[in-house]
Formats: sequence, structure tokens, C-alpha cells
Amino acid sequence: MENFTFYSPTFFVFGKDTENEAGRYVKQFGGSRVLIHYGGSSAKKSGLLDRVEASLQKEGIPYVMLGGVKPNPRSGLVYEGIELCRKEGVDFVLAVGGGSAIDSSKAIAAGTLYDGDFWDFYSGKPIEKALPVGTILTIAAAGSEGSPDSVITKEEGMFKRGAGSNAIRPKFSILNPALTQTLPPYQTAAGITDIMAHLYERYLTNTKEVEVTDRLIEALLLTMKHEGPRVIADPDNYEARANIMWAGMVAHNNTCGVGRSQDWNSHNIEHELSALYDCAHGAGLAVTMPAVFKYVMNHDVMRFAKVATRVWGCQMDFDHPEVTALEGIEAFRSFLCSIGMPKNFEELGAKEEDIPKLVDVLCNGDGRGGTISGFVTLTEEDCTKIYQAMV
Amino acid sequence: MENFTFYSPTFFVFGKDTENEAGRYVKQFGGSRVLIHYGGSSAKKSGLLDRVEASLQKEGIPYVMLGGVKPNPRSGLVYEGIELCRKEGVDFVLAVGGGSAIDSSKAIAAGTLYDGDFWDFYSGKPIEKALPVGTILTIAAAGSEGSPDSVITKEEGMFKRGAGSNAIRPKFSILNPALTQTLPPYQTAAGITDIMAHLYERYLTNTKEVEVTDRLIEALLLTMKHEGPRVIADPDNYEARANIMWAGMVAHNNTCGVGRSQDWNSHNIEHELSALYDCAHGAGLAVTMPAVFKYVMNHDVMRFAKVATRVWGCQMDFDHPEVTALEGIEAFRSFLCSIGMPKNFEELGAKEEDIPKLVDVLCNGDGRGGTISGFVTLTEEDCTKIYQAMV
Repeated sequence: MENFTFYSPTFFVFGKDTENEAGRYVKQFGGSRVLIHYGGSSAKKSGLLDRVEASLQKEGIPYVMLGGVKPNPRSGLVYEGIELCRKEGVDFVLAVGGGSAIDSSKAIAAGTLYDGDFWDFYSGKPIEKALPVGTILTIAAAGSEGSPDSVITKEEGMFKRGAGSNAIRPKFSILNPALTQTLPPYQTAAGITDIMAHLYERYLTNTKEVEVTDRLIEALLLTMKHEGPRVIADPDNYEARANIMWAGMVAHNNTCGVGRSQDWNSHNIEHELSALYDCAHGAGLAVTMPAVFKYVMNHDVMRFAKVATRVWGCQMDFDHPEVTALEGIEAFRSFLCSIGMPKNFEELGAKEEDIPKLVDVLCNGDGRGGTISGFVTLTEEDCTKIYQAMV
Repeated sequence: MENFTFYSPTFFVFGKDTENEAGRYVKQFGGSRVLIHYGGSSAKKSGLLDRVEASLQKEGIPYVMLGGVKPNPRSGLVYEGIELCRKEGVDFVLAVGGGSAIDSSKAIAAGTLYDGDFWDFYSGKPIEKALPVGTILTIAAAGSEGSPDSVITKEEGMFKRGAGSNAIRPKFSILNPALTQTLPPYQTAAGITDIMAHLYERYLTNTKEVEVTDRLIEALLLTMKHEGPRVIADPDNYEARANIMWAGMVAHNNTCGVGRSQDWNSHNIEHELSALYDCAHGAGLAVTMPAVFKYVMNHDVMRFAKVATRVWGCQMDFDHPEVTALEGIEAFRSFLCSIGMPKNFEELGAKEEDIPKLVDVLCNGDGRGGTISGFVTLTEEDCTKIYQAMV
């Protein structure tokens, strides 16, 4: 196991009706003038925003609102949010929504206290300070409610890039599984896929002897395998929603990723797809992961055989571990299809003729030097083959 | 799943040589005058205390020292520590040792800022403030490095009681698996048992539909099952020590215990044994758990069958789940024996004739009303039978 530090100081409030406590927690964590940052009309229609506003009013906390966050959140709205926070003297950003609203809120929180262009943080500059952020989560997927990470797409050039810092970790996160019950099946499935991707990205490691984190990752994959189909079959299943929601947080606060190298090539390869086609990140991952896994499988076939037997219930072929490894990848792919995720470029709305452009932005965009690295280092040629396998 | 809050703000520093960073972290978390609180001579002999002192000196932080913490830490030393902290104007308590040194440090930290008798906190009064505590862990067992809990034995009457509060959660905890390599096999095994007990106490729940936490607990039990025998066979196995150490933290910071009722009857029943005989807490648990589990098994036989199949590799007897359930308990008991733990009163050094006294203190001591509650509510008669089954 490698040396590491682990820090997850977010205060989590989990369960039914917990969004009504938002005002109390904003106050507890020092907020006195709030930006409520949210996505589309669903938070308004469902009455969620009304309840959040009421809870702030109850505590006598003034607020301004900025909606319109879209999936794959854009830099344009971040600039707008930063300007609004400065103008209004906001000292706390409250995200209401999924990973997009939270990531956009984190960017606004960091950008408000920074003199330069906030995009600097998404080009490698460390974030040293930020306004405190709180979240009310409505989609179990990104894990942003318990992570130091934020991913934003720059409209100019459509670069999708991430930044991370303890300064933008949420002070508190309110997780009410009932709020995810209104999510359409496709978005629910995309969230499930994203959570499983966070687990696989950590599972694909070059660090030896990491039984504890291997087992924790497998535990969460098994949970998703069990609860995913239940929630697709019955969107109102609170218990299944609750298990998925907590799994989504633990999958990404790094409890199960510490002390080991991680992959993240699937995320990088997918990011170009959702940046170009504006598809759901989880849907892009559903198409990307099996292609990546098959391509890199022989780098450590026993690792793929392990997840195949421990999670996917495959019988180990001791004479031909590669058969088991492949069977596990196919089982994962079938699982993703069964919950309604796309399996190829066509179903995703991606185009074969764009592959050279995708590869170029992936491997050379934003200062990268022709390769991406993770479990295996991948060249432009490798990435081309991987995208082609998705067609 | 039940509503819950989860908060684990401790900053963990994990890996080789990390104790040399102690001074830096004390400073970072606001310490300017430190009490180093430790156990026996091993920390001195091994040079660990020298390295900790050097790291404080390097940062120019003055300190006083108080050693002598024993397993099942006593109230007497806590009073002494409180007096020392007040006299010396200490503003940070640094525990060096296992759960006993940490629990004693937490009690001192809370007691120093309290006008009354610190034992009030161990009789139910909430701890509202405490000096900040940091830890350098030398035994993987109690999980106190990441928990809000502390257990102290009051010499008068030999009451062993717990207190818990976010105010006494460690600000930082330094976990270097190499520091546990010098631990004798018996203590190592007792630590392994304690970690597994923290998992079983959470596993035995009356809450339905908690797949995510069930799976996480099973993952950690599987880790202990794999790594325990490896570290007993080869005490210098750093990797096995590292996996156990991280499992020990995650087992007790409640990541895998949230949203579900928990048991803790085995701990309560054991506490009377270690209070009376001063045996190792883990050794007491090794004798206690199988007896408790067999006694309460029929309350939810499928839960015991589940852990038997998922963790202990038993074949499910679908016609007679109780056979599988029992097989799993026996497998756990055999495992504990195989790593050198006692299996009955005699091996533990406990006496059958003390059972009435044990039961009386357990069920009626310190204001309890004749029963203890958890997975199942147990009367004096139940507890008598359980102790008798350990003979």
C-alpha cells in the first residue's frame, strides 16, 4: 500500500425530509448571505426550491438565486455566478441539484475569491481558498457531494476539465433519497453507471496487496448490481434509492481508493464524448468502459478475473483466466444494457467520423503531450482503437 | 434505511515514517503546548517517543509527557492528566499508543475544560467541548483514531463505561503500519478480534434493506479473514498490517454502520470481563461473541446465514438455514482460535463463580434497569446463560 492522506470532513445529513434543515446547516457553517445555485425546472416544479427557500427564511438568511445549470456544466454560467456573488456580497454557495449544480457551485465558490480567470484552476493551478459550499443532492451519481472535485466544460473549444481541492469540499451535504425518485429512468441509470465507473477507476490499480480497498470497491459494486435493477423496475423504491445514494458517496470520497494508484482513463476518454455530443456522462461511460477494459485487460488479467468472480458471479476458469476476465467485462456490459444504457456510438449519438477529432482533443488538448495515463498509458493510436471499438 | 448524520472530519496520515510529521500537524491544528500521553515502555524503547519529541522540537512546540496508560485505561490517570494539563496550560493532547492511550487522551481533553468530575461524561452527560486531540496509532484495534468514542474504567467499583462526542474526535491521526510490527502475536490477534467485533456489532441490525452497509461490513470482515492469518504467520508483513490498519479505522468511523440499528451487546457483556479480570478486550470478545451469537441467532437466522455464506464461505443450506447460520458462527470461532485467541472462561482467566457478580454489574450497575439492549434485549437470566455458555 502506498502512503496517503485521507480527509473527508463533510457533514452528511441523510434521509427523508432533510432538505428542510438546509437553513440551519447554512447558519451552522457560517453562511449569512447565500447563493442558491440550481439546475432546471424540476427543482422548482417539485417544490424543492420552495422548501429550501423557506428553510433559509426561517433562519433569517438572505439569498439570491441562479438557476440554469445544465448537465456537463459550462464556464459561462460560472462567470455569471462569480459576478453575482461579488455584486451581492454572497458568503455561502448552496448547490441544489446533481453533480452539475455542485460542480458549478464549487467553481463559483473558488472563482469568487480569485482575482484571475477561474479557468486557471481547471488548467492546473491549485485552489487555495473558496467560499464555503453546501449541497442538497437530487441525483445519485457524481459523488461531488463528498469529493474535492469539480468538472467544468469551457465553451470555447469545448474542453471538459477537472479541478480538485479541499477548499471546495462541501461543508455539509444533504442527501434525501426521496428527492431522486422523480428522476427519469435514463438519468437514474446514467447515475448508477457513473457510480460504478468511480469504483472501476479505483479498482484498476497497479498497486499490489490492497485487499481492504479491493474488497470495499467490490462491496459497492455488488450493492449497485443488486439495487440498480430494483430502482429501474420501481423508481419509487425508497430503500433501493437510499442504498444507491450512500454507495455513490462512499464510492467517491476515496475511502476505497486510498493507498493505491487509480485509472481514470475511462473518464478521460468519455469526457470528450459528453463535451462534444452533450450526452449524459454516465451514458458515455457505459459505452466507454467495456471498450477500455477489453483493450487493457491483458495488462493484469487476474485483476479482471477477480472482479468477474467476486462481483459478477463468474466461475473462475483456472486454466484460462482471460476467459473469466472477458466474461466479467461482458457481464458488466450486459448489466448496463439491462438498465437502459447505450452500448455503442450509434445509441449514444456519437459519430465514427469524429474519432480523429476526439482523439486529438483527448491526447493533445489543453497542454497534454500525446498520451493519457492511468492503469495503462494510452497513445493516440490506442485511443483511436478504443473509440473504434465503440462503433 | 433510517435517517442519519455522518461526520468523520479527522485528517488521516497513513504510511511509513509518518510519525515524523506529528509536529507539523499539531501546529496545523492549532496546538502550541502539548501533552504527549502514552502507554508503557515499548514506545520509549522503540524510539518512537524520541521521534515524536524531535518532530515537536523541530516546530518549536513545548510539551509535557504523561505515560503509564494501561489496557482498559483507568480514571486515576485521567484525573492526573487533567491536573497536569491545567497546571501546564496545555492546549493540545497528543496520544501515542493504541485505543487505551487515545481513549485516555480524549477523557483528559474533555475533562480539562470541564469544571465538574470528568466521570459525569461517562455517566451520560454530553461532552460539549474538549481540547483538540491528535493521535499516533500503534495498535490496530479500537478504531478510536477515527471515532468520537472513549471507554474508561472507574477504579471505584470497576465500572467500564463509554462516552462519545464529536468534540473528542481526533483532529488528525497518524497511522504507520510499521509501528504495529513489534506488537506481540497475542495483542495483534486481540486487535484483529476487536476490529471484527466492531463489524459484527454493526452487522447485527434490526433495520431492513441495508445492502450497502451489509456489503461494506462483509468486505471488511473478508479483509480481516484474509489478512489476519498472514500477519500472525509473519508479524513483519507490512502490507498485511497496512490492510488491517485501514480496515480497523473504516470499521469504526461508522461509514458502514450508518442508517441501521446496531447491537453492542457483545461489547457490553465483554466489558465486565475485562473490567474484572483486566484481560485484553479483544480476547474477551473472542470468548463472548460466539456465545452471544448462538444465543440470539434465532432472532434473525437469515442474517446469520448471510454472513456465514458471504464471509465464511459456507454453503447455504436452503432447507435448514439455521444449520448454515450455526456453521458460520463456528467458522468465526475457529478462525479466532486459529489466530491464538482464547475460546472459554478458563483460557481467558475468568471464573464461573463470578457470573452472578458479572451479571449484576452488567445489568444493574451504573443506573441500568435490569436489562441490556441491542439486536435483542437481554435480561439478567439471558446474560447468565450467555456467560455460562462461555465456561
